[in-house]
Amino acid sequence: MASEKPLVAVTCTAPVNIAVIKYWGKRDEELILPINSSLSVTLHQDQLKTTTTAAISKDFTEDRIWLNGREEDVGQPRLQACLREIRRLARKRRSAGDEDPLPLSLSYKVHVASVNNFPTAAGLASSAAGYACLAYTLAQVYGVEGDLSEVARRGSGSACRSLYGGFVEWQMGQRADGKDSVARQVAPESHWPELRVLILVVSAEKKLTGSTVGMQTSVETSPLLRFRAEALVPARMAEMARCVMERDFQAFGQLTMKDSNQFHATCLDTFPPISYLNDTSRRIIHLVHRFNAHHGQTKVAYTFDAGPNAVIFTLDDTMAEFVAAVRHSFPLESNGDKCPASRSRFLKGLPVRPALLSDELKAALGMEPTPGGIKYIIATQVRPGTQPSAWHGAGAGARHAKSSLHPCLSGKPTC
Amino acid sequence: MASEKPLVAVTCTAPVNIAVIKYWGKRDEELILPINSSLSVTLHQDQLKTTTTAAISKDFTEDRIWLNGREEDVGQPRLQACLREIRRLARKRRSAGDEDPLPLSLSYKVHVASVNNFPTAAGLASSAAGYACLAYTLAQVYGVEGDLSEVARRGSGSACRSLYGGFVEWQMGQRADGKDSVARQVAPESHWPELRVLILVVSAEKKLTGSTVGMQTSVETSPLLRFRAEALVPARMAEMARCVMERDFQAFGQLTMKDSNQFHATCLDTFPPISYLNDTSRRIIHLVHRFNAHHGQTKVAYTFDAGPNAVIFTLDDTMAEFVAAVRHSFPLESNGDKCPASRSRFLKGLPVRPALLSDELKAALGMEPTPGGIKYIIATQVRPGTQPSAWHGAGAGARHAKSSLHPCLSGKPTC
Repeated sequence: MASEKPLVAVTCTAPVNIAVIKYWGKRDEELILPINSSLSVTLHQDQLKTTTTAAISKDFTEDRIWLNGREEDVGQPRLQACLREIRRLARKRRSAGDEDPLPLSLSYKVHVASVNNFPTAAGLASSAAGYACLAYTLAQVYGVEGDLSEVARRGSGSACRSLYGGFVEWQMGQRADGKDSVARQVAPESHWPELRVLILVVSAEKKLTGSTVGMQTSVETSPLLRFRAEALVPARMAEMARCVMERDFQAFGQLTMKDSNQFHATCLDTFPPISYLNDTSRRIIHLVHRFNAHHGQTKVAYTFDAGPNAVIFTLDDTMAEFVAAVRHSFPLESNGDKCPASRSRFLKGLPVRPALLSDELKAALGMEPTPGGIKYIIATQVRPGTQPSAWHGAGAGARHAKSSLHPCLSGKPTC
Repeated sequence: MASEKPLVAVTCTAPVNIAVIKYWGKRDEELILPINSSLSVTLHQDQLKTTTTAAISKDFTEDRIWLNGREEDVGQPRLQACLREIRRLARKRRSAGDEDPLPLSLSYKVHVASVNNFPTAAGLASSAAGYACLAYTLAQVYGVEGDLSEVARRGSGSACRSLYGGFVEWQMGQRADGKDSVARQVAPESHWPELRVLILVVSAEKKLTGSTVGMQTSVETSPLLRFRAEALVPARMAEMARCVMERDFQAFGQLTMKDSNQFHATCLDTFPPISYLNDTSRRIIHLVHRFNAHHGQTKVAYTFDAGPNAVIFTLDDTMAEFVAAVRHSFPLESNGDKCPASRSRFLKGLPVRPALLSDELKAALGMEPTPGGIKYIIATQVRPGTQPSAWHGAGAGARHAKSSLHPCLSGKPTC
């Protein structure tokens, strides 16, 4: 049934990315320009993704946004910055005389609905996926092409890295207006098919310091952060790109761990200090080093963002043994571990075959098991970036996609 | 009763010191020369001290040492370095023709017995007190005078700071032979009589990384540590000395906290990373910042050495309120808190009057109480350095003090 009201609605999805060279600190709070470049790995959307639908219509009287089914304040500055930026790009394109496939007025208001497929309590970097998805979806609906780094970045700095799949760097840039502070793909997702990612979701209190305020305080108070950004990160970026290009897991893993530790070191050097790692995080760090020491090489690497959850990188031939080591060191609380249903709830995502730990490895881990320290594991891998998943049509003859705008969804706010 | 065997025995005591500008890392492992200067506060011996008795006799056939009642291997390199150094100084003094009050042969063997008055499980910096005491006692028995920094330092770097009372700096020095790497008093213990020290002893697993190995790994792997030592500590030393001289508690407290945090940041930047703080340590840090925020000024400051225990600096007018805040946030496990005996066991050392917390302060602390996180508190203050406590005589007519050499003592090894 054709609608008499012109409406364009587009649905896109975006992935989470995990930085292996960390972004922490802005040189420009307004434009969200970082004090150093960063490099990340884009995760598979089967396990972790944001889905966003945006629609414009002349019947809409105001911009509105729903996150996980609940309407949120559309006036928040970062959301407004994204909307302003995408409309500016659309106007620029139109005034440049490019052919316009969507002859709808730029003054049309937009409705946006966004939802995550990953659990609320995970404390995973959802804002990156959320703003990447918003930027990409708005670009589709307003007919904007080209690099969307600036639009995504204005929502959340690291969001620009979720626009691309595989291995992505966010170049800090030098310009005051931020035009050269953009994301680019270092290598596609197909480049290193053996790489696997495990997210160890740690039981945790709510974090006390949000990333935005945290990094601002760090820039103002940590002399170590300034030194890291200026003197250490440039060489680390080059080395990390080399590790990726050469699929050198030993060096990739070691640098990933060192950079995670250094990021958390600068948090601790902040005043008042910021601590995102908790005792379980530290036990995971210890477990990884013991596991590697037992094997005489770096077979597993950890990285931690602004929270206690660990993201583990390994290769497909090691995943099963490391998951068994995690199960051994962090058994489920109560007797649930013996129940097949609990076991499957503990491990989500990619299938991982059961593996037996050798007595030598158990002895080498040398830890008292900590029941309940890890709530569950998500097993995943590297995959493509933001992509369109549905196109609901344009113009007077378009199929109504308004149902997408009011999803009855539960979960965690995305943006 | 006079003995027919010549014997000299001397007993001395030495205090613990707590660094407010931290020492972490050696530029010379053999001579124990640090990569940066450090500054510490010497604590009162009533609460924390080492007592050491040393005796020399021509009847002794070998050097021997007892720590807390148990004989230890006298051949350990650091102990040997101290013995060699003190005998070298004694020879030098003799050859210089100084009057020798102790005409005993330098070839006489020495017996040493050392004991701590503080509890075994405290994990407090006992090696500083232990080696300071050893150096001082050996100097007395061998008749060596002058600065003993080098002797104490060869046992444990920070021990040289325990030779003096009050506020003490260990100047890193520049010379390759370490002759200018010495401790000196910045201000005597009488300089800041209002200053109080609380040691919060935290329940903890045994630490995984000892200081000696830890700082060696940090020097080798942490780029942040190198930067800190070279670029940041010199200005911090000057500022800390100013804070002490002017009794500027606000600045003293803030710099103390920042330097503790930065030391632990460099531990985290070490590879593999070192974590001495645990979740309870971090709750104490949070408590201190909330307490100060409530008062709108820095009334309390924390510092942590290579372990989870907090050392708190405050002034006498704030001690009671802060102890009440600690009791509120870390109640005793079980119902023990209501029992006067448990309450007194929880607080050792200086008397602290009970204080009521205002509801505003309780709300400002904003923490769920963590029962059992802190085992007990030691309240103490700043005091003199190493000192002789007993002189057992010299020569053929000397009183036998051999009983001091075989104390039946229990507790923690000192050196």
